Amino acid sequence: MKVNLNPAKGMRDITPQEKEIRDYVEGVIVNTYKQSGFELIETPVVENIENLIGSKGGENLKLIFKILKRGEKLDFAKEGFTEEDLADLGLRYDLTVPLSRFYCNNRANLPSVFKAMQVGNVFRAERAQKGRYRSFKQCDIDIIGDGTKSAELELIATTAKALNALNVTDFVVRFNDRRVLKAVILKCGFTEEEFDGVCIIVDKLDKVGLSGVEKELNEKDYSLGASANLVKALESINDKGTSCLVEYGVSEEVVKDVEEIINQSREFADGKYDVEFDFTLIRGMGYYTGSIFEIAYKNLGYSIAGGGRYDEMVGNFIGEKIPAIGFSIGFERLVNQLMDEKFKVPNLEKLVLLYESGDKYIDVLKKADDLRAQGYTVAVYEKAKKLGKQLNQFTEYGYNKFAVYSSEETEVKDLSSN
Amino acid sequence: MKVNLNPAKGMRDITPQEKEIRDYVEGVIVNTYKQSGFELIETPVVENIENLIGSKGGENLKLIFKILKRGEKLDFAKEGFTEEDLADLGLRYDLTVPLSRFYCNNRANLPSVFKAMQVGNVFRAERAQKGRYRSFKQCDIDIIGDGTKSAELELIATTAKALNALNVTDFVVRFNDRRVLKAVILKCGFTEEEFDGVCIIVDKLDKVGLSGVEKELNEKDYSLGASANLVKALESINDKGTSCLVEYGVSEEVVKDVEEIINQSREFADGKYDVEFDFTLIRGMGYYTGSIFEIAYKNLGYSIAGGGRYDEMVGNFIGEKIPAIGFSIGFERLVNQLMDEKFKVPNLEKLVLLYESGDKYIDVLKKADDLRAQGYTVAVYEKAKKLGKQLNQFTEYGYNKFAVYSSEETEVKDLSSN
Repeated sequence: MKVNLNPAKGMRDITPQEKEIRDYVEGVIVNTYKQSGFELIETPVVENIENLIGSKGGENLKLIFKILKRGEKLDFAKEGFTEEDLADLGLRYDLTVPLSRFYCNNRANLPSVFKAMQVGNVFRAERAQKGRYRSFKQCDIDIIGDGTKSAELELIATTAKALNALNVTDFVVRFNDRRVLKAVILKCGFTEEEFDGVCIIVDKLDKVGLSGVEKELNEKDYSLGASANLVKALESINDKGTSCLVEYGVSEEVVKDVEEIINQSREFADGKYDVEFDFTLIRGMGYYTGSIFEIAYKNLGYSIAGGGRYDEMVGNFIGEKIPAIGFSIGFERLVNQLMDEKFKVPNLEKLVLLYESGDKYIDVLKKADDLRAQGYTVAVYEKAKKLGKQLNQFTEYGYNKFAVYSSEETEVKDLSSN
Repeated sequence: MKVNLNPAKGMRDITPQEKEIRDYVEGVIVNTYKQSGFELIETPVVENIENLIGSKGGENLKLIFKILKRGEKLDFAKEGFTEEDLADLGLRYDLTVPLSRFYCNNRANLPSVFKAMQVGNVFRAERAQKGRYRSFKQCDIDIIGDGTKSAELELIATTAKALNALNVTDFVVRFNDRRVLKAVILKCGFTEEEFDGVCIIVDKLDKVGLSGVEKELNEKDYSLGASANLVKALESINDKGTSCLVEYGVSEEVVKDVEEIINQSREFADGKYDVEFDFTLIRGMGYYTGSIFEIAYKNLGYSIAGGGRYDEMVGNFIGEKIPAIGFSIGFERLVNQLMDEKFKVPNLEKLVLLYESGDKYIDVLKKADDLRAQGYTVAVYEKAKKLGKQLNQFTEYGYNKFAVYSSEETEVKDLSSN
C-alpha cells in the first residue's frame, strides 16, 4: 500500500528552520502587544457550528470545515438528511467570532474596556494553491467597549510598533471609514440597498483598475449617472483630500474624526511609517461599521495587516450594543515577505557538541550544560565518521559553532571557518 | 433565540490570567528544550483520516473527531453509506502520529538523528468531565534514529531539566522496559498472545491494588499458576531490585541497559529528583518496544509526564526500521498542579496608566512608551469616576503598579499600597 506522507491538502508541515523564524516573529509581535497591555486569550479552534453559521462571515461561511457528529447523535436512518443533520461542530474560520463569543461569555471577569490579543490558526476550505493555505495563523488585537477614537489610535500605534520591532518600516497605513463610503456612495445616487453590492465592485479596484470598476458598475442594474459620479469620486477624492468630503454629504463630525486619527497617528509615527486617507479602501467583510484600515508594505499585491470597527457584532450575541474594533496582522504574509527578504533571527548562537560512542554520555550532557550556561544553544550528536560532511550539514541546519567533547578541555570553534 | 455562549462541549476559553501562567510554563519548557538542541516543528491539527485510522492508536481511534467531506465529494446519494464515506480528514489525537508522518515526509532535509520538539493541542471526543477536556496541549520531545541508550539518558535529563526550571523538583522518574515485562510475564507461564491482555490488567494496579489485579487475572481464561506467579513477581521484584531479573528470564544485556540508564540518570539528577526501577509500570499504548518511563509528582493519582521507545512506529510509514523514543509532558496536568500550588509568573511588572478623557491621547501613548522603556508592561485605560473601585479591579487582573497621566510628571505607584 502506498502511504500518503504529505500533510492534508492545503495544510503544512513546518520544518525547524522555518519554525525558528515564525516563532521569533510571533514572539516579537506578542511581546510588543503584551507590553502594551493587550491581554492574550485563547479560544478553541473547534466551535459549535451554529455560532459559526450564525455569524456575518459572508463568503467564509461556505468554507467552514464541519465536524461529523459522533456515536448515537449520528443518525443515518433519518431520510433525506442534510449536512446540518450530520455536523454539530466546526473549525473557526477567523478569530473574531470566537473572540465575540468569549467576551460575552466571560465579561463579568473582564475589564469594561477589554484590550484583547489572540494568536492562532484559522481554517478555510479554500481551493489550495501556492502561498494560499487552508490553515493559517492570524495575530489579532481588539478593543471591546471603547467607542472613542482612542481605540483607533492605539490599535494603529501598537500594530505599527510590532512591525517596527521586526525592522519593518516604510509601510503605509491606509485609512478610510465605512460612514464616509456610505455617504459618498449615496450622494452619488445609489440607494441604501445598493451600498453593499457597490462596495464589492469597488473593492476590486486594485485588481481591475478604474476602467474595470466602471465596466462592472455599468453591467449592473445601477443608475448610469450614479455610476459615473462614483467613478469621478474614486478618481478625485484622494487628490482633493478629506476636506472635500463634506461636499459629498459626509458629516463634519465624521470628517473631523478621520482627520484627527490620521494626523495624530502620523505624529506618533514620527516618520517611521506613513498614515494616509484612502477613499478607495473598502475591505470585504460586511460587519464593519466605521473606521477601516490596512497596512500596505512594498509593492506586494496585498496588505500585511487589516482591520476596522465592528460595533454591531459582539453585542449581537447578547442583544446589546457594544463597540468593538480590531487590527489583524496577516502572519503568513508577513513571514513569507520576511523570508523572501532573507530574514535572520538575530543573536542566535547554535552550537553542536559532538561525542564519540565511547564517551560516557552523562559527562557529555554535563559538558553541554556548562556550554549552555555560557549562553549557547547546544545540541548533542554523535560524531560521524565523515566529520566535514557532518559539519556542513549542521551549518545548513542553522548552527554556527561546534565543539568535540573532551574530558579535558572542549574547544568551541566557528562552523563557518571549518 | 437563546445563544449558547459557552465553548463547545469539552473545549475551553482561556482567560488572560490563566493564559499568562500557561504561556510562562510553555515558554520555560520550550526554551529549555530549544537550548538543549531539540528542534521545534509544527504539524497541522488536521490530518488525512487514513493516517489517523491506520495508526496503532488503540482506544484513541474511537475518539477521533472526523471532518465532513466538502462539496461534490460529499455524496448523499450513495446508498448505505458509512462514516468512512462522509469524512476524509480528522483532528489529530496525539502528536506522535503526525511526527512520524512528518519525519518520513521530510527526512531528506533532517539530521540522520533527529531531535524533535512539538507543542500543540490534540483532540479526543472523550466524555467531558471536570479536569478532562476534549482538546488539550501536549509538549513532546522525541529522538528519531538513535537506538542507543544515549537517547533515553538525554530525554530523561532534558524533561527533568524543564521541570526543574519551573521549580518543580522532588519528583520520581519511574523506569521500566517492555522487554523486561515480556520476559517476566512469559516466564510466569503466560503465552506470547496473552502478553497484551495481561499488561492491560496489570496497568490497573494503581487503581485496584494487587488483590484487584489478582481477581481480574483469575476471572480470565489464564493458567492459574501463571497468574499466581505474576502476582508474586509484582509483589517482590521491586523489593529485590533489577539484579533478580535474570532469574525471571530477562537477558543480561537488557538488565545492564536498564541499570545503566537508571544509574547514570540518577547521577545526572544530583539529588534534585529520583530515578527508580518500577516493574509495575506498564503504560497503555501498544506501540512501545523497549524503555517506558513516567514522572510521578507528589501524591497525584496520575503522572505529569510519560514516554518510551517505539522502534516500530516511524518506520512503518515507509517500510523501514527506524528507532524512535519520546517523552511527553502532560501540559494540562502540570499547569493544573502549578495553579493549585498558587504558582505566580516571576518578575511581572504590570502597570496601568490612567488618563482623563480630555487628555491628548497621542501624548498618553507616548508616555506609556516611556514607561515601557523602563521595563514595565503598560496598559492604557481611561480613568473611571470611581478610581478606588477601578484600581481594585486592576489588582484582580494581575496588575501591581498604576500611574495617572500628567503632561508634567507621571508618578508610578504601587497598586497594593492603594
